[in-house]
Amino acid sequence: MGYSLQEIANNIGGRVVRGEGDPSDISGVASIASAGPHDLVFIEDEKMLSAALQSKAAGIIAPESLAEELSKSPKQILFCAQPKLAFARAAKFVTEQRMQDQQLGVHPSAIVHQDAKIGLGASIGPHSVIHARAEIGARTRIASGVTIGVGVSIGKEGMIHANVSIYPGTRLGDRVIIHAGAVLGSDGFGYVRDNASGTYEKFPQIGRLEIHDDVEIGANSTIDRGALDATVIGRGTKLDNLVHIGHNVQVGENVVIAAQTGISGSCVIEDAAIIGGQVGLGDHVTIGTGVILGSKSGVLTGKIVRGKGEVYWGVPARPLKQHLKELAALSRLAKSQAEEK
Amino acid sequence: MGYSLQEIANNIGGRVVRGEGDPSDISGVASIASAGPHDLVFIEDEKMLSAALQSKAAGIIAPESLAEELSKSPKQILFCAQPKLAFARAAKFVTEQRMQDQQLGVHPSAIVHQDAKIGLGASIGPHSVIHARAEIGARTRIASGVTIGVGVSIGKEGMIHANVSIYPGTRLGDRVIIHAGAVLGSDGFGYVRDNASGTYEKFPQIGRLEIHDDVEIGANSTIDRGALDATVIGRGTKLDNLVHIGHNVQVGENVVIAAQTGISGSCVIEDAAIIGGQVGLGDHVTIGTGVILGSKSGVLTGKIVRGKGEVYWGVPARPLKQHLKELAALSRLAKSQAEEK
Amino acid sequence: MGYSLQEIANNIGGRVVRGEGDPSDISGVASIASAGPHDLVFIEDEKMLSAALQSKAAGIIAPESLAEELSKSPKQILFCAQPKLAFARAAKFVTEQRMQDQQLGVHPSAIVHQDAKIGLGASIGPHSVIHARAEIGARTRIASGVTIGVGVSIGKEGMIHANVSIYPGTRLGDRVIIHAGAVLGSDGFGYVRDNASGTYEKFPQIGRLEIHDDVEIGANSTIDRGALDATVIGRGTKLDNLVHIGHNVQVGENVVIAAQTGISGSCVIEDAAIIGGQVGLGDHVTIGTGVILGSKSGVLTGKIVRGKGEVYWGVPARPLKQHLKELAALSRLAKSQAEEK
Repeated sequence: MGYSLQEIANNIGGRVVRGEGDPSDISGVASIASAGPHDLVFIEDEKMLSAALQSKAAGIIAPESLAEELSKSPKQILFCAQPKLAFARAAKFVTEQRMQDQQLGVHPSAIVHQDAKIGLGASIGPHSVIHARAEIGARTRIASGVTIGVGVSIGKEGMIHANVSIYPGTRLGDRVIIHAGAVLGSDGFGYVRDNASGTYEKFPQIGRLEIHDDVEIGANSTIDRGALDATVIGRGTKLDNLVHIGHNVQVGENVVIAAQTGISGSCVIEDAAIIGGQVGLGDHVTIGTGVILGSKSGVLTGKIVRGKGEVYWGVPARPLKQHLKELAALSRLAKSQAEEK
Repeated sequence: MGYSLQEIANNIGGRVVRGEGDPSDISGVASIASAGPHDLVFIEDEKMLSAALQSKAAGIIAPESLAEELSKSPKQILFCAQPKLAFARAAKFVTEQRMQDQQLGVHPSAIVHQDAKIGLGASIGPHSVIHARAEIGARTRIASGVTIGVGVSIGKEGMIHANVSIYPGTRLGDRVIIHAGAVLGSDGFGYVRDNASGTYEKFPQIGRLEIHDDVEIGANSTIDRGALDATVIGRGTKLDNLVHIGHNVQVGENVVIAAQTGISGSCVIEDAAIIGGQVGLGDHVTIGTGVILGSKSGVLTGKIVRGKGEVYWGVPARPLKQHLKELAALSRLAKSQAEEK
Repeated sequence: MGYSLQEIANNIGGRVVRGEGDPSDISGVASIASAGPHDLVFIEDEKMLSAALQSKAAGIIAPESLAEELSKSPKQILFCAQPKLAFARAAKFVTEQRMQDQQLGVHPSAIVHQDAKIGLGASIGPHSVIHARAEIGARTRIASGVTIGVGVSIGKEGMIHANVSIYPGTRLGDRVIIHAGAVLGSDGFGYVRDNASGTYEKFPQIGRLEIHDDVEIGANSTIDRGALDATVIGRGTKLDNLVHIGHNVQVGENVVIAAQTGISGSCVIEDAAIIGGQVGLGDHVTIGTGVILGSKSGVLTGKIVRGKGEVYWGVPARPLKQHLKELAALSRLAKSQAEEK
């Protein structure tokens, strides 16, 4: 069971050129190396052209710039402006159709509170727990071993993977994907030191966490609720695995944060910022719209980093050019001192 | 249902000054921006004074130094030496009362071994598993999806959040809070290389983990058991999310460790140390009483870092002043070399 | 119930010298400080010799080089070429025997799909979920709260600890140990930016994850599946806690990776490499056979680091000698500038 390339193009756009016949059994996507006769592949330039043609793939997604080279292709071609993007959309189209065959409904071993609301076509996996007043949107899938706290609301068409823990009151938008083991809405790291005894007392962590539409959160990442107000993850933002987001952080739309990065409390990350892996931000940092922060960078408490498309790197983070100059200067200095000896 | 400010003061201390009436319906705490008519707020100085007075809050916790400015306040005031601390305690008082209304007891879907002991007023959430000879103290709450291993003992009034995993034999004191997804008592990272084959064989990881009273552990943090003896987390210590503590580590009392920091095997961290986020300590490091380690610092294997209140920063960590001088020197060097060209 | 030292030697090798009698009740291993009369201890040199002799231990594992010093020992001795390795093997022998007494089989609260295959002598803990077409090898133990996805295959004699999540299609070899909370086979961090809207669309993450024989994975670590092809963790490799491995990464055999290290997509790590804690590798990095990367090092995207036994350190990682020279040069520079003032 599959689709013709034209059916796929009808859904994702692009121009189809027929090759030998027009098989209607495309059921997957694959790398050029591993493609089988029911798979689509993609190329972005001439480099992989001949490998793609020699592969077993049923069809190739390619840029219009290769129209001439592909004019005599024995394979059917889908021409698109952004072939990799079209490939991603084709994969989604094919996969989604397949998912409709999956088992739906509430597994008998799931514990669903009588005051929880489960949307139409939603599924709750084995041993998951849905607490009172939680709301699960239409067609959202909850895997196994998941805990959804009191009053949590999740939009439609979401996917919550195994063993995720969502604290009470957290709100997730539509089409949100949460990978296994992630923790959403945990208490922030806030204490008040009792000057008399030197002990720490817990500052209230009773705010909430809002995750907007189309966000994806990586495995075992943790996002704290606000202390008194809200932590917010904006629409379309993507977090990798093992990322930490502290209390009261405001992350904008279409932000990308790579693995193991930590964002301390009350930071503001504006739209379209790109943050590498293992980056650390101190409290109350602002990262401006479209800023690019290199991996392992560190930004000191309270700093503001701005510049759309500007790249910052290092600890403390500075403009890439300056960072590279300093690295080169240090290397020269060490060499010249070694020669003097 | 709530409390009068005087009832709260009776529990947490401080001097109440009545404003317009004395409502007995304070049921929460909030930020000044979001406070409703049943909420308490706090101020520490003049800066937020007028905002607090204009807020909808039922009352304000304030320092005595503002007594004059607040003498004509239309709102009731609770004067305290440390307003933020009083606010934290007020929040705890109000919340604890509310928690007493929560469902108690063992959920029917929980698996509790017949040889486990469950204390008076303790609760075990859905799908949690309590293995043989485990002991859960009075009024301790275990959320859902939690695994408590064979022979684990947990003190009274603790809170174990969803999907926490506790390995056999681990001991937790009273009033310990463990956030979702944390792993306690896992095997340490210890192997012996077989010189003949180049393969690694597991060194026994059969020690235990002791977590003392009033400790809080963040979401998805991991603390390994001792290899042969014990890993210990001292009383009142607080760990943020995604922190790693290796085998045989000894952490003292009232230590604070921020997110994503990693402490290698056999380190000693003495009382009241403050360790920033993403810090890394090599094996067998000692961090002295009251030392402050800046975020992203690294300390090499075997080093001893001492000085109460002294700040260390960088990789390898050095006194803050020296670290700043080196950063400035490098910046100047790079500039001067650029000018020479 | 225990073993004589000779019975243990028969299994792990070495030469036994009798002391006072030959007790046949050795049932554990311990540190010298905590050893009881049924425990074995080990020494590697003269340093701990007298402490070991004065301990309560039933026997001592020691190197042949101490044969003379131990000739009059009142305790029985097991002489071996690598005493620590022998100690590890003795611990394993004693422990494994004990484990055979543990409860086997499928716990009644586990959900095992009718199309899953459970091997002879395997055990499935409470509230674990085994999805369709999964295969669990002989004598493999699955703890509680574990999710094993559709079509996952796990070899024999493995140990999967509590709350582990394994995504569909992942393959694990024999004798694999996965610690609590780890996530295997999650989606990689791959998106395609739609240039028109600035939004990110998910690139297909439909490859698989293969973990070969004798691998151990630490608590709360995350390993992503390949995007289109496979992520591979080679035989005998050991990962510590909170490690992140991105999509398409190829890790060789007998590699050691310490806690909180992150390996970005498509990296290649060759056999016997040793990687410290909190290291970060950019995309498409190659770490050659036997390379040693110091803790907190960073390697830039696309770089190749080679040299068996060579130590690299710093960000960006450079040969240790050069790194130390640069640190020293910077320190001298800062001092000389301070003196000039």
